[in-house]
Amino acid sequence: MTRGKFITLEGSEGVGKSSNIQFIANTLKALGIAVVTTREPGGTPIAEEIRQILLTEYEEPTLPETELLLLYAGRKQHVEHLIKPALALGKWVVCDRFFDATFAYQGAGRNIAIEKIEQLNQWALGEFSPDLTILLDAPVDIAFERIKHERKLDRFEKEKKEFFEKIRMQYLRIAQKNPHRYHVVDAAKTLVEVQTEIKKCLDNI
Amino acid sequence: MTRGKFITLEGSEGVGKSSNIQFIANTLKALGIAVVTTREPGGTPIAEEIRQILLTEYEEPTLPETELLLLYAGRKQHVEHLIKPALALGKWVVCDRFFDATFAYQGAGRNIAIEKIEQLNQWALGEFSPDLTILLDAPVDIAFERIKHERKLDRFEKEKKEFFEKIRMQYLRIAQKNPHRYHVVDAAKTLVEVQTEIKKCLDNI
Repeated sequence: MTRGKFITLEGSEGVGKSSNIQFIANTLKALGIAVVTTREPGGTPIAEEIRQILLTEYEEPTLPETELLLLYAGRKQHVEHLIKPALALGKWVVCDRFFDATFAYQGAGRNIAIEKIEQLNQWALGEFSPDLTILLDAPVDIAFERIKHERKLDRFEKEKKEFFEKIRMQYLRIAQKNPHRYHVVDAAKTLVEVQTEIKKCLDNI
Repeated sequence: MTRGKFITLEGSEGVGKSSNIQFIANTLKALGIAVVTTREPGGTPIAEEIRQILLTEYEEPTLPETELLLLYAGRKQHVEHLIKPALALGKWVVCDRFFDATFAYQGAGRNIAIEKIEQLNQWALGEFSPDLTILLDAPVDIAFERIKHERKLDRFEKEKKEFFEKIRMQYLRIAQKNPHRYHVVDAAKTLVEVQTEIKKCLDNI
């Protein structure tokens, strides 16, 4: 049996990941491909438990390294118990965020050295990597407008804007470094245009 | 202010760790030293949450690497938010199990390559290490008798015996490799003899 393909969808807030993940799954299903959609952090019972710890705000701050170790603890379960077995059965797996999100959010966003993340990634997953990553990219202003519905940004939100600017730049750097698997889609365009673009890169694999 | 000392107590089941951790704390307190006792996995609110995941039996098996990543996620919080701050205030920290337990249980017991644990340990903690580690060592038969109160071992328990034999041997190997910080106490002796021995090695630091 031919191994399925592993597709990840990346991008920061407001770029339309959730609507497009379903579009990708439906497009593939229409071609007769068996599809599993999943998400990170999470994806298996244990990984979802770990996700809960990641999303809970404790009085004790979570150290960036702890966050990273928890992310990879969940990711290891997810890869070995859901993603790889599905691929081995010939299914295609479409995942809402994967390790690139860690490089973007924990690396650029939380200032963990990229080499430290690479070391941990290598430790936990070895060479395992998506076959195709679609990056939905839009200027932070446009993404913010979509979230905020044209509400004025306060000081805290402006800081958040810088944070998302860093995330965006990091995603674009990762895309540039991995042209063999990356496809950057201009998410500032209309949904129809975005989906035409996504369909094109699915046709390519 | 002089930095406090970090003391860890190691050993497998039935060697008397719990009674002796209190003895160490009391001995130090009698000398006018401020003491914090703690344990692994756990020690901070987040690390205790992670401990819960480690101790829960899920239908989905926890992968050895996931277990290791979770252990180090908790350990990082514990070291940075409890152990190091206490030491910096001049307090002595006495910890029931620390990273050596990971090398013994996950390494020898669960067959994770020692180098993989070393890599993760270095990644998370760098050179941070106990000042003194007291290993309570007893032949597995004696430790088992103490737990089992001379009940006959069934087949499953015999397998367990082999498991604890591996743990014991690994602990002894670690002690041999780290003579500068390790003190092996013969836990087959009476409690009074064991405590005399422990007191002697506390006097040395």
